[in-house]
Amino acid sequence: MEALEQRICQEGRILPGHIIKVDGFLNHQVDTKFLAELADEFAKHFDISRATKILTAEASGIALAAICSYKYGIPMVFAKKAKSDNIEGGLYMSEIFSYTYKKKVTLICAKDWITADDKVFIVDDFMANGEAMRGLLDIVGQAGAELIGIGCAIEKGFQHGGDKIREDGYPLKSLAIIEKADETGFEFRKQ
Amino acid sequence: MEALEQRICQEGRILPGHIIKVDGFLNHQVDTKFLAELADEFAKHFDISRATKILTAEASGIALAAICSYKYGIPMVFAKKAKSDNIEGGLYMSEIFSYTYKKKVTLICAKDWITADDKVFIVDDFMANGEAMRGLLDIVGQAGAELIGIGCAIEKGFQHGGDKIREDGYPLKSLAIIEKADETGFEFRKQ
Repeated sequence: MEALEQRICQEGRILPGHIIKVDGFLNHQVDTKFLAELADEFAKHFDISRATKILTAEASGIALAAICSYKYGIPMVFAKKAKSDNIEGGLYMSEIFSYTYKKKVTLICAKDWITADDKVFIVDDFMANGEAMRGLLDIVGQAGAELIGIGCAIEKGFQHGGDKIREDGYPLKSLAIIEKADETGFEFRKQ
Repeated sequence: MEALEQRICQEGRILPGHIIKVDGFLNHQVDTKFLAELADEFAKHFDISRATKILTAEASGIALAAICSYKYGIPMVFAKKAKSDNIEGGLYMSEIFSYTYKKKVTLICAKDWITADDKVFIVDDFMANGEAMRGLLDIVGQAGAELIGIGCAIEKGFQHGGDKIREDGYPLKSLAIIEKADETGFEFRKQ
């Protein structure tokens, strides 16, 4: 998606450890009008009209998922990272390794909110090694729900998490895939 | 707001430790169409047209703030809970005690995204002792920004965090204030 690639080039910054910061419009300050354009773009690639739920992971996926949910007219569910005493039994759980936090975290989702009757569209803002996405796919699988597709805003192509998910046969569409990010700037995969 | 009080009565559950769960529409599964009604309600109480930024705290405030941001046509910023190595210098920081997690957490916000020129509308989904709200007010103060108002969906009136914020002169509007929650059901403050 050209508008997203342009925005990454204009506003993105590269930190040591291949960390790409787009926190001016995606995951700290959030331009929700622009997120609505991303939501419209996902809808060109998947039959969203069949979806009954949007699923994402806290925290930074929530804004994009909320805008998708509002635009598509279906509820969203965000899987939580286990830590709160606010959540009791009846949970799907999936252990993942968080690249951001450099440790294992458990994604949890109440069984009440994703069931075998659901048709789930998974959304996330960012994918590096794809661990969070694997956790969300695991939750959809545990629920016995149908997967409509996976929409990701920005994929770090050089970390290959997305490629492995595609190789496993999942319908993943990332709106921008960064192949290279260094002092010379960003390079994107042709799609 | 009657529609919100009704929804709490119909779907809310009360757990030991005065924990109120509304995770079917507000903070796990999220009914974003309903959140848009809450956003419209806030706009009756505050001059949102003057606001330049919505500010909330991760994680569960993000969905409501995203919908407010989209409806009002201004960006949102979510303060993060310090833990990630994804955030460098140039930060506002405010230490708060999290009722949910029973420990101190530091709210952080990059100085880039809230400045002295901003007019900030603070939004959160839930208020118990008001600690997170204090942290957000602290960030607005550190930035030297103007506070337009504070909109909260559900306030636990019996924990008095909101009352103290009002006593301190801040313009806080909670759309439902729960005064009592026990086996007989919910009671709300008349507003």
